[in-house]
Amino acid sequence: MRRTRVNDTLQSQAPMSSVLVKGWVRTRRDAKGFSFIELNDGSCLQNLQVIVDDDSDASASVKQVNTGAAVEVEGELVASPGKGQQWELRASRVAILGGADPETYPLQKKRHTDEFLRTIAHLRPRTNKYGALFRIRSESAFAVHQFFRDRGFYYLHTPIITGSDCEGAGEMFRVTTLPASGPPAAANETLYDADFFGKEANLTVSGQLEAELFASALGSVYTFGPTFRAENSNTPRHAAEFWMIEPEVAFADLDDNMDLAEDFVKHLVNHVREHCAADLDLFGRFVDKNLMANLEVIAGKPYVRLPYTEAVEILQKAKKDFEFPVAYGIDLQTEHERFLTEEHFKCPVIVYNYPQEIKPFYMRFNDDGKTVAAMDLLVPRVGELIGGSQREERLDVLERRIEESGMDTADYWWYLDMRRFGTVPHAGFGLGFERFLMMATGVANIRDVIPFPRTPRNLEF
Amino acid sequence: MRRTRVNDTLQSQAPMSSVLVKGWVRTRRDAKGFSFIELNDGSCLQNLQVIVDDDSDASASVKQVNTGAAVEVEGELVASPGKGQQWELRASRVAILGGADPETYPLQKKRHTDEFLRTIAHLRPRTNKYGALFRIRSESAFAVHQFFRDRGFYYLHTPIITGSDCEGAGEMFRVTTLPASGPPAAANETLYDADFFGKEANLTVSGQLEAELFASALGSVYTFGPTFRAENSNTPRHAAEFWMIEPEVAFADLDDNMDLAEDFVKHLVNHVREHCAADLDLFGRFVDKNLMANLEVIAGKPYVRLPYTEAVEILQKAKKDFEFPVAYGIDLQTEHERFLTEEHFKCPVIVYNYPQEIKPFYMRFNDDGKTVAAMDLLVPRVGELIGGSQREERLDVLERRIEESGMDTADYWWYLDMRRFGTVPHAGFGLGFERFLMMATGVANIRDVIPFPRTPRNLEF
Repeated sequence: MRRTRVNDTLQSQAPMSSVLVKGWVRTRRDAKGFSFIELNDGSCLQNLQVIVDDDSDASASVKQVNTGAAVEVEGELVASPGKGQQWELRASRVAILGGADPETYPLQKKRHTDEFLRTIAHLRPRTNKYGALFRIRSESAFAVHQFFRDRGFYYLHTPIITGSDCEGAGEMFRVTTLPASGPPAAANETLYDADFFGKEANLTVSGQLEAELFASALGSVYTFGPTFRAENSNTPRHAAEFWMIEPEVAFADLDDNMDLAEDFVKHLVNHVREHCAADLDLFGRFVDKNLMANLEVIAGKPYVRLPYTEAVEILQKAKKDFEFPVAYGIDLQTEHERFLTEEHFKCPVIVYNYPQEIKPFYMRFNDDGKTVAAMDLLVPRVGELIGGSQREERLDVLERRIEESGMDTADYWWYLDMRRFGTVPHAGFGLGFERFLMMATGVANIRDVIPFPRTPRNLEF
Repeated sequence: MRRTRVNDTLQSQAPMSSVLVKGWVRTRRDAKGFSFIELNDGSCLQNLQVIVDDDSDASASVKQVNTGAAVEVEGELVASPGKGQQWELRASRVAILGGADPETYPLQKKRHTDEFLRTIAHLRPRTNKYGALFRIRSESAFAVHQFFRDRGFYYLHTPIITGSDCEGAGEMFRVTTLPASGPPAAANETLYDADFFGKEANLTVSGQLEAELFASALGSVYTFGPTFRAENSNTPRHAAEFWMIEPEVAFADLDDNMDLAEDFVKHLVNHVREHCAADLDLFGRFVDKNLMANLEVIAGKPYVRLPYTEAVEILQKAKKDFEFPVAYGIDLQTEHERFLTEEHFKCPVIVYNYPQEIKPFYMRFNDDGKTVAAMDLLVPRVGELIGGSQREERLDVLERRIEESGMDTADYWWYLDMRRFGTVPHAGFGLGFERFLMMATGVANIRDVIPFPRTPRNLEF
């Protein structure tokens, strides 16, 4: 007999006279004359209730079954007289596939802290919360691909190992095949001679520059891949390895970019609400009571679009004791971003046209001679969810900006070629996938939305 | 006026009195009384033919337009009297967005070699061949996600930076934040003390072990992400960075695994044939004349399933002068794999049950005491497209196999935990995405199916 997934039994339109399910025991309870098993196979949040009569053949096995054990159960799917489920399985056979010693199995039926569960990241997807979380992560990723494909974008795999540094700065991991004890030669000229690539190699911090190249050929592209920051900071919002989505669109300006960002976020939120209702509900009940109301605002309301100058004025007038004082020219801190979106506007806010001094060289220089066509999309609780810009498409301006940033235009010959040959206005942005998941679920620590998070001095599993 | 994509104009059901298109000029041709422009915006292979009458306002601009220039064109979409297209655009306005100097623009209208185009990988997606290729790559990736989602699999992001080594061997890249000149301390004990993770860190060669952990919670999962090999080999089939798809399924055995692999490959091929017909046709005409016939076999025929022992017998009996002699116990070489699938069976072949000595520790030990439940799917021209196995789910057997492989069971405490708590039979495989693309397009060099390939001493762009 072929196995039926628990989700399919629960969604069944009719009783099933004979069904085989396989999964893990969440709990076993013995009552007078029969036992209950709550069986989960990961296909959905809800368990299948299995009833084993004491006088059935299955009874002997079931008494040895503990939380965490893997079993297969054959039986009849019947309407459940109990509350909370439409169907239950009356077992005719229970076989133990793999036991779980109650003395040593860490996931007993009780509430565990997120901190403890991080130490057993290999087992935490077996809990309700993390099972739900990683199903939502999976479905959100699909929503990303669907959104862009429906709009004629092409998915692009930009390189992970890179010889360039997109931001013109930033902490990067180095990639090498040289022994950890140092290179064979001492002279600096030959530092990388024996290395795999014959030059310094790093892990990418962004696929944007390469995405721009492809946007100049395929029109609209997006990346969705891992990016890296070697920042030695232990905060709930930073990980050394995270996934980023970066669309890049030829023939688009800053307004188009803001439209795309707003549509994208709304699409993702609506997709998760529609396709992950049961899993999302868990977070609304146990993690953040305001979650559903917040998501309704994010999916429903038009986003405020606010020039940086006006954002600074609002912050300066605010009766709020900021840790970082506000003045024109500062980079907005999370406390400022959250004030704008959570307290002042109470909805997502797109701040645009930032002073050029605080933004990277590739952002398009505005005619005011002071600002660049940057935009950041701020959402409640998370702060910056998206950062993007219209890109500088004018060769002479871009060359000047690269030089002013203290970099060498020769290193960017290929990036500049794009402006030499058939240059077009274009724009794009980056969305941190984990930031989105934190917003969508109310989870406060980035370590809890990544299967196996990487942070300073943390490389287990 | 909003821009219309070239693909949408070509698919139009009716003439359009006023339309705005933007794109790059593939060619300009001047005739008596008017000029032709072939305009491409990356949305599809086919160009839009633009007609500019010499007496129109657009005429002055169009005479300055060269191959590679970016233009926007307004006009009327009308039925084309010419051959090869249903519609053409009669221009009322042409504006040059970005020129392309014919003296320096490398992509003039002629056939360029793949070798030359690799040196301008930032421009090659502007050619017909590479535009088509990267559209197929994008659509194939979508097909991967769709296939697994339709079957109830969850998409999993396994870590890129890892402290473990899945194969128990293999050349890995090291990831570090220490200076290239060597660590600050000399003593071996403190080699990684000052490093970001405080221990040796590498780029992953596979997400399998982590995928197994999640399969034991969510049931069916798959990864789709970059993997790395620091092999110093310059072959047309190897890159240092490539994308791999790795499904992992709880409650599945080797037969289920073979079924899944066959379904998966057939689905991908059929999806590409259906959704990328025009792009694929280019490869059938200009890259591999047998492509369509090969794909028909791969999509249509049942795959041969052949125990390793029988494969060896067939190879030994073959009247073929192999470079590597065949005997029981050898690892099959590409020449052997290609003989089986191309010459002997003339269809894809799944070889299974390999001698345990030539396979990794995690593959399930068969009852014959000699072989493991491994499987390789071989396809014409490419050889091994998929490698997989049923995994060893028995704690004692797995511990013994780890020790026999010369590794320390303590390093795999989390992997072994899976067998301690609710262990289940499970199976999975890995498909090299680039190998699939080579098979699907007939392209012979892996460097030509990756946007920016990484190989020894090659880290440009």
